Amino acid sequence: TKTPKAARVRLAELIKESQSPADVWIQKLSDTKRDIELHLTRLADEATSDVGSVPEIDVAYAEQGQFNELRLRRLTKLWEEQKSDKTQPIVNRDAPRATDLAPQPIARPRVVVLGSGWGAHAVAKVIDTKKFDAIFISPRSYFIFTPMLASSSVGTVEYRSICEPMRSSNPFIDFYEAASTGIDVERKVVKCVSVGTSSEFEVPYDFLVLGIGMKSNTFNTPGVEEHCFFLKEVEDAKRLRAGIVDAFEQASLPGLSEDELRRRLTFVVVGGGPTGVEFSGELFDFLQQDLKRYYPRLVPFVSTKMLQSGEGILEQFDGALQSLALRSLRREGTEVVLGARVVEVTADSIKYKTKDGSVVSVGCGVRVWACGNQPRPLARDLIAQLQRPEDAPRGRIATDAWLRVLGVPDGSVFAIGDCAEVETGALPQTGQVAAQEGAYVARVLNDEALWPPADSPPGPAPGGA
Amino acid sequence: TKTPKAARVRLAELIKESQSPADVWIQKLSDTKRDIELHLTRLADEATSDVGSVPEIDVAYAEQGQFNELRLRRLTKLWEEQKSDKTQPIVNRDAPRATDLAPQPIARPRVVVLGSGWGAHAVAKVIDTKKFDAIFISPRSYFIFTPMLASSSVGTVEYRSICEPMRSSNPFIDFYEAASTGIDVERKVVKCVSVGTSSEFEVPYDFLVLGIGMKSNTFNTPGVEEHCFFLKEVEDAKRLRAGIVDAFEQASLPGLSEDELRRRLTFVVVGGGPTGVEFSGELFDFLQQDLKRYYPRLVPFVSTKMLQSGEGILEQFDGALQSLALRSLRREGTEVVLGARVVEVTADSIKYKTKDGSVVSVGCGVRVWACGNQPRPLARDLIAQLQRPEDAPRGRIATDAWLRVLGVPDGSVFAIGDCAEVETGALPQTGQVAAQEGAYVARVLNDEALWPPADSPPGPAPGGA
Repeated sequence: TKTPKAARVRLAELIKESQSPADVWIQKLSDTKRDIELHLTRLADEATSDVGSVPEIDVAYAEQGQFNELRLRRLTKLWEEQKSDKTQPIVNRDAPRATDLAPQPIARPRVVVLGSGWGAHAVAKVIDTKKFDAIFISPRSYFIFTPMLASSSVGTVEYRSICEPMRSSNPFIDFYEAASTGIDVERKVVKCVSVGTSSEFEVPYDFLVLGIGMKSNTFNTPGVEEHCFFLKEVEDAKRLRAGIVDAFEQASLPGLSEDELRRRLTFVVVGGGPTGVEFSGELFDFLQQDLKRYYPRLVPFVSTKMLQSGEGILEQFDGALQSLALRSLRREGTEVVLGARVVEVTADSIKYKTKDGSVVSVGCGVRVWACGNQPRPLARDLIAQLQRPEDAPRGRIATDAWLRVLGVPDGSVFAIGDCAEVETGALPQTGQVAAQEGAYVARVLNDEALWPPADSPPGPAPGGA
Repeated sequence: TKTPKAARVRLAELIKESQSPADVWIQKLSDTKRDIELHLTRLADEATSDVGSVPEIDVAYAEQGQFNELRLRRLTKLWEEQKSDKTQPIVNRDAPRATDLAPQPIARPRVVVLGSGWGAHAVAKVIDTKKFDAIFISPRSYFIFTPMLASSSVGTVEYRSICEPMRSSNPFIDFYEAASTGIDVERKVVKCVSVGTSSEFEVPYDFLVLGIGMKSNTFNTPGVEEHCFFLKEVEDAKRLRAGIVDAFEQASLPGLSEDELRRRLTFVVVGGGPTGVEFSGELFDFLQQDLKRYYPRLVPFVSTKMLQSGEGILEQFDGALQSLALRSLRREGTEVVLGARVVEVTADSIKYKTKDGSVVSVGCGVRVWACGNQPRPLARDLIAQLQRPEDAPRGRIATDAWLRVLGVPDGSVFAIGDCAEVETGALPQTGQVAAQEGAYVARVLNDEALWPPADSPPGPAPGGA
């Protein structure tokens, strides 16, 4: 993930210039819109840069084949009819019936995509729905612009501004709000359970794309699930924002000792990766700007800490960047403790082991857990079913260079983004890589000329069962 | 509550004109800002129109007396210091200590205000914090611009755009996020319990203003609490928005019969008062605009119903308005059932009794309960403690013409808004009345010349114990 540094600097200036919160919000929304448009433009560029035969995205929508044109014409007609008289009944008995609008049985192969993150979103943008019946399945019906999730947790940007419904990403796909509980690669079906109703159903596929990401890793540390905030979903960011405000509201109540105030207003971030560093920066901005305006009396009692198990922060990045980030955090007043391994979290403290083996307990009011990710059960199951442990040493689904899952002989299953690892060399687990992989798989599916040579099936895994 | 009709028409035009959701959002935000500014301007006008001696609101802030000027100067200095070097530590050990910033013990009388609705918000805007130590106590730390709550439940406006933190309404008040559990008018203390920590504490007062509103009334109908959505708080609107989206997502899953689709997409509003009618209008706009874009195939299965126990809707308004609203709802396709008394609500149906005594069961997916309000326990307790049942026949705290609570001999307790009723003639239970009452009480407190004559104490209640 990439922090839009320039946008943050610009926001900071705006906040200084303007006295009206509404003006600032409006400007922020414009900035967010620009960011998102920029991203979509880049995605469109990527989709067309390598392969001349893939049409530009908007054109692709407009040039959907006969089937979708027919459907689109009917929808447009219905829409125009309704629009012409704003006050006519919603239920128009003369309108085309659902069965008219539903996909007619046309022999198109079906692509099922699991997920709604960077990878799946890119597939939705590029897949040719004229050629494929495309069904997306995810417990979350919208894509999140993750670089701004940390900003949304302190209220700099509104949640809805960083979400895009998958149905809106591409109106010609179908979407099921459901979790996938299993994949049968023999029968070529995905087993699903509805998020809302818990009803179970199966979805057959011709091609399957796995973009299911990973889940937060607590390393089985006691108390983390109960007492820490996370930063993975919009719901996490909402809970965290409420938690920060609660800490200040509770510290505003009468009768608290100075020690108690200090404890309640100690913010601890566990993990010195990109998420932890991003959130620390946003928290600093929040404390600089909002804290002083709304809770001036509490300023002297606030402190921020970062606990990092490794010997430096942002360890996957360049050394110069690491020390720059560390200096910057410390200059902002965050106490960064390196070599600190958290062993227990309670409702009002965090215990960690230092390098010399002693255990330190820190009283605190808000705890954010940003310690990296682990594979989801679906990925674990698939690996156990199809691959050898040594193919997927980090629990990521192993793929060949075409992103086809090893161990699926007919090459009908692809895996992209954080849940997958290319056997010829692991790529970084970032949104950029996931989006590029998603666009790549969609382009390959769209154009038979790009399909892998028939004499190189992806599996069974080399040397495997 | 008043629907900003003009703003809604303007929005509808904008949505038609523009293809970009972000443009629409930005415009909506501007409109909301204008609405809120308009409201604040009106409030300022009201605050100054009757009483020449009360300064204009912004001037009132600037002209806070010696105490607040001192505090403001210190805060400004601290803020300027911090701002000059954006990267200096948050915890500035050289900065003024909290004890420097805290209110010095000055013999100012204390006004405690319970609530954060229209009444309490108006008190916060007008009360003279130079004369009074003003403490506001409410479980909700922000004011809601209620006329747009129904819009926020269908996503037309963002929640945050209709909320204002009480701390921001007037930075010179103190605020406790707590519920009040009892009032001791002898000892002049309010008993409170913190929302977050459940800790209990007492707050002494010299003057007390009750602006606690009312709570939703389920009339003890079985199943309402569990299976209905409400429209009173922002949390209610959030749940309702999620509920509407869930209904459509669940109806999008494969394998549902047409009957099941029809049931899941039946929306029932119980109650034909302003809230029910406002929400029905917003729901219609939502179904017209968003449904067709995101769920075109589901359009023919959607229906909306309103169940109203009385013989007409909007019964407290003029007859012509009533029939206009009824015609408009029916033209939009809402089936309005009059004389329908709901007797039971389940997870997938509503049972109601018609005028002729027969019981009808309606299968439905989303149920909104908007059937009016009942007194909060705190108001009930206070009435039982101080007043005769015939003083407060509708469970609203009886006051004299100065809004002083009957039965409090020293006249130190006021009640405003929905929770109160003036003995000389009940006023409508609207936000406008509550705001005018709040501004009135604050003006009376600010200026001794306006205090009630000493020979007319508010209680004990006339002829009472």
